[in-house]
Amino acid sequence: MSNPSAYQKLRERFRESALVRTTNAALGWDQETYLPPLASDWRADQLAWLSGQQHRLTSAPEVGEWLAECEGSGHSLDTVESVNILGWRRDYDLATRLPGAFVEDLSRTTAQATHVWAEARKRSDFVHYRPMLEKIVKLVREKADLLGWQACRYDALLDEYEPGARTAEIAAVFAKLGPAQAALVGPASEVAERTPADSLAGEYPIEAQMAFNREVAEALGFDFESGRIDTTAHPFCTELGPQDTRLTTRYDGRDFLSSLYGVLHEVGHGLYNQGLNKSEWGLPAGEACSLGIHESQSRLWENHIGGSEAFWEHWMPRACHHFPNLKAFTPAQVAAAARRVAPSFIRVDADEVTYDLHIILRFEIEQRIINGDMEVADIPAAWNARFKELLGLDVPDDARGCLQDIHWSFGGFGYFATYSLGNLNASQLTRAARAAHPSLDSELARGHYATLLQWLRSNVHSHGRRFTAPDLMRQATGSPTGMDCHLDYLRAKFL
Amino acid sequence: MSNPSAYQKLRERFRESALVRTTNAALGWDQETYLPPLASDWRADQLAWLSGQQHRLTSAPEVGEWLAECEGSGHSLDTVESVNILGWRRDYDLATRLPGAFVEDLSRTTAQATHVWAEARKRSDFVHYRPMLEKIVKLVREKADLLGWQACRYDALLDEYEPGARTAEIAAVFAKLGPAQAALVGPASEVAERTPADSLAGEYPIEAQMAFNREVAEALGFDFESGRIDTTAHPFCTELGPQDTRLTTRYDGRDFLSSLYGVLHEVGHGLYNQGLNKSEWGLPAGEACSLGIHESQSRLWENHIGGSEAFWEHWMPRACHHFPNLKAFTPAQVAAAARRVAPSFIRVDADEVTYDLHIILRFEIEQRIINGDMEVADIPAAWNARFKELLGLDVPDDARGCLQDIHWSFGGFGYFATYSLGNLNASQLTRAARAAHPSLDSELARGHYATLLQWLRSNVHSHGRRFTAPDLMRQATGSPTGMDCHLDYLRAKFL
Repeated sequence: MSNPSAYQKLRERFRESALVRTTNAALGWDQETYLPPLASDWRADQLAWLSGQQHRLTSAPEVGEWLAECEGSGHSLDTVESVNILGWRRDYDLATRLPGAFVEDLSRTTAQATHVWAEARKRSDFVHYRPMLEKIVKLVREKADLLGWQACRYDALLDEYEPGARTAEIAAVFAKLGPAQAALVGPASEVAERTPADSLAGEYPIEAQMAFNREVAEALGFDFESGRIDTTAHPFCTELGPQDTRLTTRYDGRDFLSSLYGVLHEVGHGLYNQGLNKSEWGLPAGEACSLGIHESQSRLWENHIGGSEAFWEHWMPRACHHFPNLKAFTPAQVAAAARRVAPSFIRVDADEVTYDLHIILRFEIEQRIINGDMEVADIPAAWNARFKELLGLDVPDDARGCLQDIHWSFGGFGYFATYSLGNLNASQLTRAARAAHPSLDSELARGHYATLLQWLRSNVHSHGRRFTAPDLMRQATGSPTGMDCHLDYLRAKFL
Repeated sequence: MSNPSAYQKLRERFRESALVRTTNAALGWDQETYLPPLASDWRADQLAWLSGQQHRLTSAPEVGEWLAECEGSGHSLDTVESVNILGWRRDYDLATRLPGAFVEDLSRTTAQATHVWAEARKRSDFVHYRPMLEKIVKLVREKADLLGWQACRYDALLDEYEPGARTAEIAAVFAKLGPAQAALVGPASEVAERTPADSLAGEYPIEAQMAFNREVAEALGFDFESGRIDTTAHPFCTELGPQDTRLTTRYDGRDFLSSLYGVLHEVGHGLYNQGLNKSEWGLPAGEACSLGIHESQSRLWENHIGGSEAFWEHWMPRACHHFPNLKAFTPAQVAAAARRVAPSFIRVDADEVTYDLHIILRFEIEQRIINGDMEVADIPAAWNARFKELLGLDVPDDARGCLQDIHWSFGGFGYFATYSLGNLNASQLTRAARAAHPSLDSELARGHYATLLQWLRSNVHSHGRRFTAPDLMRQATGSPTGMDCHLDYLRAKFL
């Protein structure tokens, strides 16, 4: 490294920024888990202050000077150094396009909006939410314009979650994926109907669910010395530090599969975080590649591993230990219960066959809103009409329609598409891992997950932001994100 | 207000400082409740960063300029304004005496030290803790010298927790209080021995304890819309915002009194926080007067209210509802079980008669360490010898001796004395409230706590930092903190 001084200053500055970002994440985690109801205004101000500080740290003029010094030195860099410098350049360029006051305003507005949204959803009252959503859409459009875009404004937002992704490219994939998956729904539903939806219904005490979930999470490789599981209305995973990964799930005393698959999903995210380069954690070389890659990790463990019959062959004795009434069932019956397919209203409860149709709907509406082709007031009608086309159901109320997701209230336009990219990536990565390790399936059947995890560590986790998502997929699987592999997987599993 | 602009800038600056301070408190709360074991280093760096920011905000040169402008304006101020300006002046003068790097270093060291201490206590290994404690003592002495002192270095540390208090004055009170309380121990123990120590022993499910504790806390006036109760190894109360008061307690499945009195104590602290002036919260007019006043609130609700027979007369039916095996006892028997007296090793478990002897011991040792009359290495021997003199017991190991408290590891030399000041203040305040409301006892016997709480709100909580602790006590009770009232109370209750 030709100029350790400028590089070192950048390292220290972005490590400081990571301290602030994870402080923000810690307050955000607390907001979802334990915050008293009346404390949300103060919390919003704390979060806004932290967002402002983080923005100040990463957009200061000296950062630009240090970057120019590093980039102009002409000396050779090792991989970590060049990954960091390229990542900082991107982050700095994006940060300097947003004024600090704008960042704080957006943070404060979205912190308040999540409460307005939660209230509106409870009452299924879109009118109550509408002024707040209009405010957010205005801010998010402004943000996209500040960040800059070429083909369409929505590109600027997508790029935040999926660096380098373009609306047109994703739209092209979705244009084929939609009809192909829609065609699967009917036949897959017929197969699924052979297993009654409530076949496993019974008493599953929450304490027992917690114990079983923890046992499974540990077996998959999740390290509880540097992580934990709490309870929230919606499962999530957040990273509060290099050795502080917080997962959450939710419990239904009549359905242990709900909390378990929540945990399996979030464990996938958590393993990614725990597999990042610790000495570079919080710097580009130790950060996740994209949300579409992050989601591939959660869907891989949730669906490809946890949703397999092999998984239940292995775990059935431990499950019966925790839930004695399961003894009346075979592993195949439990796997079948987890494999139900039926069009439904709520995305987070949707099965794998219909899930991407929920995403396509959101992707379409978001583009129209952000590009200025639709007003916020028109969302419910547009949502319900398109839902009928895609999933064949009449949305009974906005709580089960356009009010169901938290994302818009935190300003996360552009986020949803990464869920489907994650599904596609998960199928491709699983196939590649199988190809690399012919004995993988027999290991998985014995509950040995170390080989798979090691493959993911080497091919995904350890790279940090070294590659773009398409390049990472190319390196790991031989081709960029596509839909064929995922459709093969769905057909094999559900037909 | 002559110069709204300088005053307004100070308000905004110190409100920003309160946002940072409460963010620090939120991470501290999480550290005690939910932090994964390996996450403590990163957390220490987050806390150090926040401490540095808070120091930067409150010690910046412009703060001095704004203060000078406000102080020099010669115009009349209303009460809130003058309380704020005087408080900011004190805070600014103290902050500017400590370099920012020193503040961050102290924060980082103490965050690490609490973990070293916890490990040392677990193994009862003072030698393991000694280098860390020596480092902290060195830093704390340096801090005292930076802050400045006249009579003795320990004064500078006391003043942080009890503004204006002097070592010599407290030593004079303790010199009389010690022998007077020591003389009570024998007779009070004899009375207490009539009730077996484990008279109520039985099964008290933790869920039932949580439900009962919550019911009592609500009845006393604690607002769960702006607060909550969690579980920790040691009970505490912390303030994360104007409407975010977090209490903790610990549970013993065989002893419901332990968690209940933990909650009653912390509820006392919490009611103080919830009774501060909300619009000035975080500014001097909306901050607590001193730790000795804060502790008076906890001890008042824990001992004077919760420890009374009247309390159990009222609560017995609800307690029996939650704990059916209590039906075999009378309210007087439960109150007697809560009123046990016996010299013991652990301060936080000590009864009211011996408690202050634990404090006097620490007060003496801290002075010698800080003033340079004793080395850290000599603490265990000095502790054990003095413990034998004061409480008549041979300390079996350092875990039950000088390693038992967390305070030194967070740098809290000077803190302990405020516990005893709190006991004395609590007795004086309770007597004054009774004098002001002759019907108070009959209200308390009916479980009506609103009159007492209202009296505390008017005479203590709402004043913020308007008065020094002695002046507040004079206003509220007619005389500054003394010991007579407390000794009367102990004699009446325990003999």
